[in-house]
Amino acid sequence: MSIFIKNILLDEQTTNISIKGDKIHAIGTDLVPAADDTIIDGANMAAFPSFANMHGHAAMSLFRGFGDDHNLSDWLNQWIWPNERNLDSEIIYWGVRLACLEMIKSGTTAFADMYFFLPDAARAVEESGIRAILSQSFVDLHNPEMTANVRREVEGMEQMICEWNSSHTLTQFSIAPHAIYTVSNETLKFFADFCHRHNLLYHIHMSETNSEVENSLKDNGCRPYELLDRLGILEQMGSHFLGAHSLHLSQHEIELLGKYHCNVAHNPNSNLKLASGHKFLYNELRNAGVNVTLGTDGCSSSNNLDMIEATKVMSLLQKGWRNDPLAMPASEALNVATVNGFKALGVDAGEVAVGKTADLMLVNLDNLAFVPNNNTMSNLVYAAHGDCVDTVICNGKIVMRHRHVDGEEETIREARRIVSKLITVRPE
Amino acid sequence: MSIFIKNILLDEQTTNISIKGDKIHAIGTDLVPAADDTIIDGANMAAFPSFANMHGHAAMSLFRGFGDDHNLSDWLNQWIWPNERNLDSEIIYWGVRLACLEMIKSGTTAFADMYFFLPDAARAVEESGIRAILSQSFVDLHNPEMTANVRREVEGMEQMICEWNSSHTLTQFSIAPHAIYTVSNETLKFFADFCHRHNLLYHIHMSETNSEVENSLKDNGCRPYELLDRLGILEQMGSHFLGAHSLHLSQHEIELLGKYHCNVAHNPNSNLKLASGHKFLYNELRNAGVNVTLGTDGCSSSNNLDMIEATKVMSLLQKGWRNDPLAMPASEALNVATVNGFKALGVDAGEVAVGKTADLMLVNLDNLAFVPNNNTMSNLVYAAHGDCVDTVICNGKIVMRHRHVDGEEETIREARRIVSKLITVRPE
Repeated sequence: MSIFIKNILLDEQTTNISIKGDKIHAIGTDLVPAADDTIIDGANMAAFPSFANMHGHAAMSLFRGFGDDHNLSDWLNQWIWPNERNLDSEIIYWGVRLACLEMIKSGTTAFADMYFFLPDAARAVEESGIRAILSQSFVDLHNPEMTANVRREVEGMEQMICEWNSSHTLTQFSIAPHAIYTVSNETLKFFADFCHRHNLLYHIHMSETNSEVENSLKDNGCRPYELLDRLGILEQMGSHFLGAHSLHLSQHEIELLGKYHCNVAHNPNSNLKLASGHKFLYNELRNAGVNVTLGTDGCSSSNNLDMIEATKVMSLLQKGWRNDPLAMPASEALNVATVNGFKALGVDAGEVAVGKTADLMLVNLDNLAFVPNNNTMSNLVYAAHGDCVDTVICNGKIVMRHRHVDGEEETIREARRIVSKLITVRPE
Repeated sequence: MSIFIKNILLDEQTTNISIKGDKIHAIGTDLVPAADDTIIDGANMAAFPSFANMHGHAAMSLFRGFGDDHNLSDWLNQWIWPNERNLDSEIIYWGVRLACLEMIKSGTTAFADMYFFLPDAARAVEESGIRAILSQSFVDLHNPEMTANVRREVEGMEQMICEWNSSHTLTQFSIAPHAIYTVSNETLKFFADFCHRHNLLYHIHMSETNSEVENSLKDNGCRPYELLDRLGILEQMGSHFLGAHSLHLSQHEIELLGKYHCNVAHNPNSNLKLASGHKFLYNELRNAGVNVTLGTDGCSSSNNLDMIEATKVMSLLQKGWRNDPLAMPASEALNVATVNGFKALGVDAGEVAVGKTADLMLVNLDNLAFVPNNNTMSNLVYAAHGDCVDTVICNGKIVMRHRHVDGEEETIREARRIVSKLITVRPE
């Protein structure tokens, strides 16, 4: 498949973009389409890289708006956990289809996920045409019997993971330790050995709340990232490490993350909504050499998967809490949400440039966020929402055109049907 | 004109809504339409009150994205002020048309504005079919000659304002002192007398930044609201007082605002983006009896007019800075953005209830923010953006149906044309 996007605004200049296979082949004003190119008329549209949503729980889109405005322990104990017992292959499949549909419609072509039922989730992602690293989440609750069970379960998945990863491009599997407070040191390290052996992403919730840090100081005598360092995990995983949230950090922890070129995934909307904290140390992490990426978290925390909204909130929050209107300008925020995420996923995308993997989006400049269009980048980050996205291309293939996504009506219908199978407990 | 909305979701129940003239006439499952009713099929839609955007500078939509990510003094001196010299009737008219279009498309039917060229702005609002209190902004820079000029100018407007206000419903005029740091005490008091005499809204920027408070302490020996109290303005204006921002307040100032039943307009996105502050004292103001309303500020500060986004950011920010996930639940946030705003405007709307003025919106439940629809209110506030709004009714008249607004294409075309007349200075 080859695509020719003609007369498209890119970096405030009108040009043409030629895509061949999975790559951006050429960009220039004097390009002409080949006979078999699919032509996209870029008039009144602008090209941007698509987004990489670097932390979430895609199937939890089915829980959207369920149990909001309750405290964390009520929400988990009374609303979420009793219903998660109902999870099965069919629920996961349609939950992930729904999440992929929402991501495509708001310009996201890649995500890092942490949940369950990997093959069903992967089928949904592959059929949607976008990419994901799907990590199965585990806890052992520091219980020796569960530790042994988790080890057996992961060993049982080893062949499946290796076979899947060697035979697929868009989806890759991994295993994820949920967090240091739900996973024993032994399992944390076992997972790191496993991920290191198979070249997998090590995706874990880290330093999301102050109490997590305080409990670590009490239980481990050190802060969460110091614990991982002591276990040798940061050095072992390096750029394959992805610490979701990473909100409450000491200078020493930031230095450790930088030293080993780790990735963190910031989730500003989730952090605000759950009151986890609002002072994400972006400048400090960036300056230390950490690759900072952006995520939405799951829809039961943050309640949508719109990376444009997340990019804006991230940027505004940096300006706000730092008391600095020049903090994180639009272009830097967009880089965090795009190229940094793809880098963490090991995909050479996130920039509309020759030779890059063809993950990109075209935004509609008739959307009022771009009227008038004094600055396309500024309008995308500060004024727009996901509905400005007209066309989405992932890995050189069109997955949305003029806001039409194949199977949208079926996905909405099935998501509405399946939610009654998932949610059987509704607290008063 | 009468409207019958059948089978519409309202407060999680399916019902019918009958609108006659400018009022919600009846609501009930057993209603039947009259012969001449315009029928709206509410299937797969939900009714909510429309929004009141309580602080902004509508025509500045034309500056959207112009000079972002510069410091305030550069932005004003190099980007905005040199171009504001170009303002004329035509620019204002199309700027306000553009703002009204964006407001309608995101469910807003009323706004409080502070800018220039009232008759041109009013023509744009009336032709758009929504409502506004338009206040002409003045500064005298504490200069006696300018003070005299402002007084002459306002006295020259007196007849026009009175005649307009007595002959119009949707638009009303007033005069606005810009802020205490740009307007002398004499003019502040003169405006209060004028507004009190003619029953007008007194709309002023208040306590937006820390330095404003510090300068007031230095110059006046008291905080900004204490100055207004000393001048007798809070007592005089009472519920006709609208203090935009009101971000940096002492407990004494909050008590003063409560004592006189004043209104404040919170602008969370603008406050974050300009790094004015992020700890808006919502609970404290509410508990003191202040009517807290919500605004977006102008598009050159916050960059869009989407009140759904503003409502979400307001609610999340309260949870975030207070470290309390139960702060400002969705329904309370929506009240701030709707009924509280209409109350400040003196319009009996902001609730979809019998006898209320018919300002309301219908949201499309096929929008992914509502899939699945575990909680319509939560999905509106936490998951949706303006594009979920399908139909908007203002004062009993349909101003948007299936996202179609009359004159949209012309407004976009003219906004694009006129911006080249407005923006003639573009700093490097």
